[in-house]
Amino acid sequence: MKLLNDTIAKIGKPNAEVELAALERLRNQARPAGSLGVMEPLSARLAGIAGKIDVRLNRKIIVTCAGDHGVVEEGVSLFPQEVTSQMVYNFVNGGASVSVLARHAGAEVRVADIGVNFDFEPDLPVFHKKVRKGTDNFTKGPAMSRDEAVASIEAGISIVKELVAENRPDMIGTGDMGIGNTTPSTAIIAAFSGLLAADLTGRGTGIDDDGLKLKIKAIEKGIELNQPDPSDAIDVLAKVGGLEIGALGGLVIGAAAYGIPVVCDGLISTAGALIACELAPAARAYLFASHRSQEVGHLFMHKRMGLDPLIDLAFRLGEGTGAAVAMELLDAATRILADIKTFEEVGIADSN
Amino acid sequence: MKLLNDTIAKIGKPNAEVELAALERLRNQARPAGSLGVMEPLSARLAGIAGKIDVRLNRKIIVTCAGDHGVVEEGVSLFPQEVTSQMVYNFVNGGASVSVLARHAGAEVRVADIGVNFDFEPDLPVFHKKVRKGTDNFTKGPAMSRDEAVASIEAGISIVKELVAENRPDMIGTGDMGIGNTTPSTAIIAAFSGLLAADLTGRGTGIDDDGLKLKIKAIEKGIELNQPDPSDAIDVLAKVGGLEIGALGGLVIGAAAYGIPVVCDGLISTAGALIACELAPAARAYLFASHRSQEVGHLFMHKRMGLDPLIDLAFRLGEGTGAAVAMELLDAATRILADIKTFEEVGIADSN
Repeated sequence: MKLLNDTIAKIGKPNAEVELAALERLRNQARPAGSLGVMEPLSARLAGIAGKIDVRLNRKIIVTCAGDHGVVEEGVSLFPQEVTSQMVYNFVNGGASVSVLARHAGAEVRVADIGVNFDFEPDLPVFHKKVRKGTDNFTKGPAMSRDEAVASIEAGISIVKELVAENRPDMIGTGDMGIGNTTPSTAIIAAFSGLLAADLTGRGTGIDDDGLKLKIKAIEKGIELNQPDPSDAIDVLAKVGGLEIGALGGLVIGAAAYGIPVVCDGLISTAGALIACELAPAARAYLFASHRSQEVGHLFMHKRMGLDPLIDLAFRLGEGTGAAVAMELLDAATRILADIKTFEEVGIADSN
Repeated sequence: MKLLNDTIAKIGKPNAEVELAALERLRNQARPAGSLGVMEPLSARLAGIAGKIDVRLNRKIIVTCAGDHGVVEEGVSLFPQEVTSQMVYNFVNGGASVSVLARHAGAEVRVADIGVNFDFEPDLPVFHKKVRKGTDNFTKGPAMSRDEAVASIEAGISIVKELVAENRPDMIGTGDMGIGNTTPSTAIIAAFSGLLAADLTGRGTGIDDDGLKLKIKAIEKGIELNQPDPSDAIDVLAKVGGLEIGALGGLVIGAAAYGIPVVCDGLISTAGALIACELAPAARAYLFASHRSQEVGHLFMHKRMGLDPLIDLAFRLGEGTGAAVAMELLDAATRILADIKTFEEVGIADSN
């Protein structure tokens, strides 16, 4: 708990003066005011975080956190639990969806085992941060203990620390792998919002109507039985969350403490970001929403945090795939701000 | 007219077998079926056009076509007409918005003078395709003659020919520059759709309520006076269109004839694409819509062509800026198809 508390205390504020100077530069560029839409305020936010107008996002890292979920016993996913560990190898070997999209975005994918139900070789090039081998089935009791929930968040923070020690990243993206993990993610937003599971639950990897009913029932049962306290994010995480979800929250808190912009991916990464913002509202200033996924709960998470996702490509994959695509656009946003000439610089009369 | 007719006759069909093979590969990739949303069918379309699964969009060219508009006399734009030629120099010097976004996308910007009301130096590195120095004010008569409309389309076709002769592009993007050109573009969709100008007209570069009224009135007057025939796209272009809009249509027809995928930008480029598809419906198979702009008429153009834009970043700039951003995503789509491993390739059991 000390690492978590110390890290939260370290979170500062972006440089508001630089952000204002950025907005002024954008207004003076040789184009109609506001004509680059949502890219403009995003570029100014990135400038405020970096403390300069010419932001370079050279080192971009997507951290894909993996964990397993006891609730898969309830038949909430199409895929068997073994796929979580198999996909970890796929990430390491660079053949997965996030590997491909990250490569295109000039980003590196780093994988973290937070709670996979599998013994990886100690020399497998992943962050070995296993808290335990998967959560318990939350329809029968809490998913994990309070201490384990804190440990999972601190795992995410320690990953940021290690990345900074290697060579400070200019941007961090979050991604997830964990069979069954749309179920705890949806339970988290249900717990915070008080909305009905039936109104929040999507089809995850593609379950049918019967699977959807099982999933909604599991979430309802988990909340009814465990009574997560919405004013206590660690309680919510422990009772109906997941190990990788805690780490995804820790990544956001860690990135914010180091002043690094962080882009969250889909439903699961955003559930982690939500835990982070409930624990540390100041982290919000460093957080960017990448895409709107096909999962309906995602929308409510974004609403609660006041974030507008950049894109809607109808993704429903996770891994960090949406974050990878958004990183390309955020990188483009930095160029918009720094490189487009002003009316004065090109000698054209402004319309204003 | 011969070049136009010959080029339309040359338009073939994408390879349907390759497109189907692409869709099958996408279904077998180690991820939930359909989980990469709209990127999947787009990647398959690109494969069908290229005739292979591993599509490489190495040479990407954005052609920004410039022209002036007599209708600016009616007070439809915030900026004076001189800005069109000034921006041409800004493009050539690489400091404009499209220059910056194209550079980020690994694309090259090529500028074409189709009808700017300015004498450029003959050695300025642009395509010198001036048909005439701007259109006439279409509230007082047709914007141009039928021959000039054909010449403007053929200018676009000849640009594609020249680009192919240089070194065949793998993808062409379209972009525009022309003070006042949201007015003829909106008039074009009004003419084809029969919808009211009041329901189609946006604020362009940012006119106020009074300006918007003038703009709607100008469009209504142009259509009433000239009676463009919606079954004759050249008539529509001649009566209420623009020179760069014709060329933007010619780029689409030319690209389709050479089997090159073409990405249209905002309202003006899409007006050009619409002219192209009305003249040559087979061109549609090579056409991609980049973004949904803030201009309401844009939506109706996309609807008419059955195209879904990839992104909505609230851009309202033109120049090819939306096409540049979309090119990055389409490039990513080619990697999704070719590089993400299948279940079989990575030894994971499919859920199906």
